[in-house]
Amino acid sequence: MKTDESGKKAVVLSSGGLDSTTVMAIARAEGYEVYSLSFDYQQRHRAELDAAERVAVAMAVAEHKVVRLDLRTIGGSALTDDALEVPAASAHASGIPITYVPARNTVFLAIALGWAEVLGANAIFIGVNAVDFSGYPDCRPQYLDAFQKMANLATKTGVEGNPVTIRSPLIELGKDDIIKKGLALGVDYSLTVSCYQANHRGEACGRCDSCFLRARGFEQAGVADPTRYAD
Amino acid sequence: MKTDESGKKAVVLSSGGLDSTTVMAIARAEGYEVYSLSFDYQQRHRAELDAAERVAVAMAVAEHKVVRLDLRTIGGSALTDDALEVPAASAHASGIPITYVPARNTVFLAIALGWAEVLGANAIFIGVNAVDFSGYPDCRPQYLDAFQKMANLATKTGVEGNPVTIRSPLIELGKDDIIKKGLALGVDYSLTVSCYQANHRGEACGRCDSCFLRARGFEQAGVADPTRYAD
Repeated sequence: MKTDESGKKAVVLSSGGLDSTTVMAIARAEGYEVYSLSFDYQQRHRAELDAAERVAVAMAVAEHKVVRLDLRTIGGSALTDDALEVPAASAHASGIPITYVPARNTVFLAIALGWAEVLGANAIFIGVNAVDFSGYPDCRPQYLDAFQKMANLATKTGVEGNPVTIRSPLIELGKDDIIKKGLALGVDYSLTVSCYQANHRGEACGRCDSCFLRARGFEQAGVADPTRYAD
Repeated sequence: MKTDESGKKAVVLSSGGLDSTTVMAIARAEGYEVYSLSFDYQQRHRAELDAAERVAVAMAVAEHKVVRLDLRTIGGSALTDDALEVPAASAHASGIPITYVPARNTVFLAIALGWAEVLGANAIFIGVNAVDFSGYPDCRPQYLDAFQKMANLATKTGVEGNPVTIRSPLIELGKDDIIKKGLALGVDYSLTVSCYQANHRGEACGRCDSCFLRARGFEQAGVADPTRYAD
């Protein structure tokens, strides 16, 4: 069963950030009933969970779920490990950044796959894009293709001939194009938080890699940046 | 970096049951330093976490980790969903059983992959076997091959040419052969719990699918069954 009478369903991985919120708008525009999924993985930037909740309400999703998962216990990333410092944007040179969380997208997609199977959903949407895959191995197209093949074999629905499709509609877009696409679909980016270390009011640091990429995206798109900064 | 001066490392998925404990003994016999990984996924059979802890101590693992992950929030299985009843063994006819947890092995392997990357481990061991893959899609060899291919693309170590190897040494064995192999390696099966609904003392129900398969395994292996039953 891939659809029910109310139409096709999609699980959308939501971080409350710019990319995943744009992806959610795309899924909705394609006629999917949206089930948004966020993770409380003991990340430093808890403000993203508040943002994901605001976005879910604004997008009128069918259901918003937060799965608790303690990735801090395995460590290895500046985003979850207190011993590692979130670097300033200038450190964003080349190679895999310290903010890489080992196997994070694999874990998130795996849990999304489980929920998609329970829901009888047709698709999982993830907001990986051209900016991400320069640095993170688990954001590249060939990785997503391999996940799709694995998912087809992993699930009851896949085995029965109705696999869930992994969708990454931003995969070739830069931040400016993502912003333009989202604005055309009516996204209110003031609801979103991208900063790796936003404060509890959802205000951005303006200094980290993620802040840098977001600010540059609005500048290059030629639109006003609605980001709220702490300073 | 695949090894450190103390030798090769393996993450072993441990449920405290017969299969994963045998796999742990195999990994140890192959010279791996063992890092055992269990999941507190709000399963009904919490006794498995106690058993995994006992096994870790008995096997003198380098580290035993329990990752909390609330799979109950996505539902869909008799093992995590209170609305579904764990069936008696007679219900084990054909097809995918109700005790199937959607995408469970994918989720577990994904988290193991993250930990393996942090540790610089060479391998991940999982106890899937010939009995499992008759019913569960995510226990079949072709699924594990697809996971391996995905993992090679997902991780920093994989991209750098040192992928983690997914090992399933029981994949072609039945319960009786698994038991014989474990006994040859000195496994104390009285420490392990297989029952889907063991009580808090780790005593088995003797009625569920898992109890049925375990008891038959000891019978076919021709050795005394050390399982403690509730009745």
